[in-house]
Amino acid sequence: MDAARRRFEDAGMACEFCDGPGGEILWHSPTLRIVAADDSAFPGLCRVVIARHVVEVTDLAECDRQDLMRAVFALEAALRATCAPDKMNLASLGNVTAHVHWHVIPRWHDDSRYPDPIWCSPRRSPTPRQFGAEQRAAVSRSLAADLGPSK
Amino acid sequence: MDAARRRFEDAGMACEFCDGPGGEILWHSPTLRIVAADDSAFPGLCRVVIARHVVEVTDLAECDRQDLMRAVFALEAALRATCAPDKMNLASLGNVTAHVHWHVIPRWHDDSRYPDPIWCSPRRSPTPRQFGAEQRAAVSRSLAADLGPSK
Repeated sequence: MDAARRRFEDAGMACEFCDGPGGEILWHSPTLRIVAADDSAFPGLCRVVIARHVVEVTDLAECDRQDLMRAVFALEAALRATCAPDKMNLASLGNVTAHVHWHVIPRWHDDSRYPDPIWCSPRRSPTPRQFGAEQRAAVSRSLAADLGPSK
Repeated sequence: MDAARRRFEDAGMACEFCDGPGGEILWHSPTLRIVAADDSAFPGLCRVVIARHVVEVTDLAECDRQDLMRAVFALEAALRATCAPDKMNLASLGNVTAHVHWHVIPRWHDDSRYPDPIWCSPRRSPTPRQFGAEQRAAVSRSLAADLGPSK
């Protein structure tokens, strides 16, 4: 058992990303899944979640880290093509849920927090935007074209 | 001239990372530099800054993106070994300075914002920590061992 897993189990904590997918699954492999977060405040917010409980990206084996980052950048490209945001934000924090996951976040100049990160207090009421079934299907197709079919 | 550069130049904006290094340089190559941010509020905060003005990570050529991420993870490993933080945070945002740069941030449970991201409002007075000349030299040595000498 690796140190990260032991630390997690010793703490006896539930883990949101061990207990459930964390959103609608858009693409998956044995190593990771890509999910659309169910968060209407941030349309297009998706996450890349590693399958097993690992705390830091540098705890991953090299091949898993490469698969992870390939998925992060495929997702960034898919979201840029589908949502045409003003900026993309990428972050792996894990201060609340210490299980490696990347936030891949389309941002707009008139969203509720811009130019602050999405975790800051809102500055304004956002311009409403859709990230519905049609957009999620487009992202899924783009991911399959880039990464191959889910497996 | 690529679209990102043209957008930048058309806007006539100064860019902090085109105009200066952005901190003390700990490692560099023709593609990127790794700098220690001069920010006493976040000891150990370092950044990986791409050399030319590019807005999004997915605008980079594949080889440059691989070099960039290799540097980000070498820096995470160096900071973990040197600072022994409770958690590492990684982020590429660029909402204020739209020139690709990664924040690589050691975090502690008793720092001023934990578990919030560092851009949020402070929750408490932080426990003071050093990231002085000795620690910066240790990170530099670790980077050179991992990535080869600066070039």
